[in-house]
Order: sequence, then structure tokens, then C-alpha cells
Amino acid sequence: MSDKSRAIGVFDSGLGGLTAIKQLKRILPSEHFIYFGDTGRVPYGTRSFETVIQYADDDMRFLMSFDIKAAVVACGTVSAVALPSLEKKFSLPIIGAISPACHAASKISKNKKIAVFATPATISKNAYNAHLNSIDPEICIFPVACPMFVPLIECGYISKDSHATRIIAAEYLSKLCGTGADTLILGCTHYPIISELISSVSKEVLGYEINIIDSGLEAAYATKTLLEEKDLLNTETACGKVDFYVSDETQNFKNTASIFLGEQAENVTKVSIG
Amino acid sequence: MSDKSRAIGVFDSGLGGLTAIKQLKRILPSEHFIYFGDTGRVPYGTRSFETVIQYADDDMRFLMSFDIKAAVVACGTVSAVALPSLEKKFSLPIIGAISPACHAASKISKNKKIAVFATPATISKNAYNAHLNSIDPEICIFPVACPMFVPLIECGYISKDSHATRIIAAEYLSKLCGTGADTLILGCTHYPIISELISSVSKEVLGYEINIIDSGLEAAYATKTLLEEKDLLNTETACGKVDFYVSDETQNFKNTASIFLGEQAENVTKVSIG
Repeated sequence: MSDKSRAIGVFDSGLGGLTAIKQLKRILPSEHFIYFGDTGRVPYGTRSFETVIQYADDDMRFLMSFDIKAAVVACGTVSAVALPSLEKKFSLPIIGAISPACHAASKISKNKKIAVFATPATISKNAYNAHLNSIDPEICIFPVACPMFVPLIECGYISKDSHATRIIAAEYLSKLCGTGADTLILGCTHYPIISELISSVSKEVLGYEINIIDSGLEAAYATKTLLEEKDLLNTETACGKVDFYVSDETQNFKNTASIFLGEQAENVTKVSIG
Repeated sequence: MSDKSRAIGVFDSGLGGLTAIKQLKRILPSEHFIYFGDTGRVPYGTRSFETVIQYADDDMRFLMSFDIKAAVVACGTVSAVALPSLEKKFSLPIIGAISPACHAASKISKNKKIAVFATPATISKNAYNAHLNSIDPEICIFPVACPMFVPLIECGYISKDSHATRIIAAEYLSKLCGTGADTLILGCTHYPIISELISSVSKEVLGYEINIIDSGLEAAYATKTLLEEKDLLNTETACGKVDFYVSDETQNFKNTASIFLGEQAENVTKVSIG
């Protein structure tokens, strides 16, 4: 196969990375994607750094078996903990989930006050703080751990009117009252699914609509830019094909995948990993 | 050590079994308990039957290293899937989480209409149905999967007035409207923490207060009865000691344990398992 027609690998600890797939398919309609969700070992966020590095290594080796031309690390935890290690071991373009979102946020923010909503594990790792302050040390960062968003989204409480999700979102957004934060990074692959709800609640709680940055969307843009730079962009007609691999039962994955993808996941195969 | 002064082993896939510990300490104040929470491999509910049986075997072997006189399986999934296998392999009294609750429910229900709230994994295994109908084939069972309760409880939304939890509880209870169910088994170790809330919401949604059965409490009563029958009850003065072992970081466990125990967990040790 020519360099350009090879697939792009995407992996995540579970289902969340499917929001990145949704954006990648939209931004790069001619590409073929191979998605690996490590559903048998999810969540990564609570594991030790050594374990996350080992898991990321396993995941990448699996994707490399498909002769991919680039890899997107949709997993926030792996992006925070294992990206330098992956870049050292594997000689292909690798796009993480954190850096593109931080660059987008720093460009859009007018007052350099940027909030981050993420899982408790990501927040405790301070991953966004380090990235944002390496872009501009004057940026003030307001991190908020949002442990209820993942279960609410996985259980389907995602409509803009979902009462329970609005109550929880209001609680998290209220932690930004008085900070003046004008931009909010959704630092977990699940969260873009409720970005409209968050935006709507932000008006009620903060009195203004906060700029929302979707990490998956920014990763998709960064992937396109990188492929262009490396002359690896597929310029053939639309492909849009995704092959899905998971490390736990495929049925569980299929049941929930449509929430994230906006369509049914076809071609799902269970594999052994690690 | 005399037979009677030996400890009682208790295990669960994670933290939930601590609600059983709370009841066991209350009902059996002279006993010494050894708790193992397999926090490194939680949750069990989504694993295959073979994996759950293997994990249960590992957990029991670990507890057996303390020369325990009896074992309480606080984990609903293990109780549903692996109890016969454990009883075959280990020659000591073993108390599961399902059978005692079913017996209590069948005694208290006046109309033989019994609802079960549990995790999706437990509901899909039909574990309570089989037990209840083996007690009385005339019992009508109304199972309701309640996926949001565990995250809500683990995130601390446990007060009787918690708005988000009341909304979710109302949604689950509304599935019992018109069934006439007079008794509700809380078939997950987490749920007794919000039993007052569920009871209060049941009045609003159903128009009557449903009888609530706490699996952990019933397991504690069953343990006492079994120890008396086997002449293994410790009749010394109050001990109330619990040694905690977990397979993931102790700090995560300690942070959340107090929600379940009603007090801080002391003596927590991390161990390797399996």
C-alpha cells in the first residue's frame, strides 16, 4: 500500500475516544481509521504511571500490526502520562489529546483565564496546567474534577434538557463563579457529548456563555495539519471506514458506542491484548 | 488460636462490601474481620463468568491465608456466579449476599411482589429471580437495573435531600408503578447508603413506602446464625477490629471508605493478588 492510503490508528482506554473518531471522520473523510478501545482494562485513570505506560505500549503495538501511518492517542490519561515514552519507542507521527486543546484554548481566550473540566485522575495529574503554562506562563488555570459526567453520559443522560445532568453541570460550573474564566477545555473525551448542555448551563450559572474547547475536535485538526506537513494525507475519494477492536465483549461496546459516534459501530472485533 | 477467636473473612470487588462490614460489626461486635477489596480489578460485573470464578478463587485464597473461620462474600457478582464453585473448593462456612436477602424479602412481602434494584450486570444474570423462585415459585419479581446509583454514591450524593440522586431514584422507582410491589431488595452493596432516600422517594412516586431489604444487613444476620449453628461465635468481649486489604492504592480506598463505613478505615494494606 502507498504511504498515503495506510490507516490512521486511534486508541483509548474505552469508549470515549469514539468522540475523536466522530471528529476525525468529519475532518478527514478520505482516511481509513483503526480504533482500539481497551475496554477490558478500562479505566486507566486510576492506574499507576508504570501501568499506564505499559498499557499504552501494548495498545500501540497492537495498532502498529496494521501498518498505520499515524496514531491518535484519544485517551487523556495516556496523553498525560505516556506520550513521551510512546514517541521515543515508535517512529511515526503521534497526536495526543492534550496539546491541541491547550493551543486552541490559548488562542481563543481573551483574558488568559482558562478552565479545565476533566476526570479526577486527569485533574490530579495537572497535565493541562503544565501544557498551558508552557504555551504562556501568564495563563491562569482553573481545574475542576467532574467525576459524575462519565457515568451520566454512559447512562444516556445527554439531552440538553436532562435534569440530573444539568444539576451536576451547574454544580461544577459554579466552581468557576468569580474566576472570570472565558474559556473551558473539555479535557475528557466523553464531555463533548454534553457540550451544548454545558454551554447552556454556563449562561445560567456564570451569566455568560463560556468558550468551549473540544479536545477530540482539536486533535482531529492537529492530525490533519500533521499529515499535510508529512505529505501523508489521503487525497483519494471519501473512505470514512472505521474498524473497531476492543478487549472486552463487543456487545457492551456496541450498546454504548452510538452515544459517542452518533451512529452504530459496525466491524467490531474482540482481541486479546497485553 | 481457638476456633472461635479466629477472624471472619469478607471480600468484595471493591468498596461496596464495606456496607456489609458496617452491619457485621454491629451484629457481631466480638468478632475480628479481615476485609479484602479487589480494587485493582474492580468491577467484576462486566467480566466473563470464568474470570469472575478465577478472581473469586484468588480472593478466597488470600483470605484463607489468615486462617479464617468463615467467609462472607459481599460481592453480588461473585455471589451470583461463583458461590457453588467456592463452596466446592473451600471447606468453611461461606455466606453469600443474595440468598439471605431473598429469604428476608419473601418473609416480609405480603403480596409476593418483590422488586430488585441492582447493577445492570447483576440484573442481566437473573440471580435474584432464581433464588426468589426457589423459595416460592409464586413470587413475582420486578428487576430494575440502576446504573447511576454506584457513581452517585461514590461521588458522595448520598444525603436524603440530594437533588440529583432523588431525580434518578424517582426514575428507577417509576418503573415499579402499577406493579404493586410491596418489597424492594437493594441488590448491590452500595445501595443501602441511600436507603432512606429511596424510601422517601418511594412515597412520592408509588404513593406508599416500600419495604426495603438491605443485602448486607441480611448477610450479617445469616452469618451470626451460621456461626451459632457451628458453635463458632466469639463470645469474648467486644473486638470490633477490622483489617483492610486492597489490591490498588490505599489512599483511593481510604478517601471513599468512610462513605460506606460511617467511619474512617484504619489498618489498610495494599497487597498483590492473582
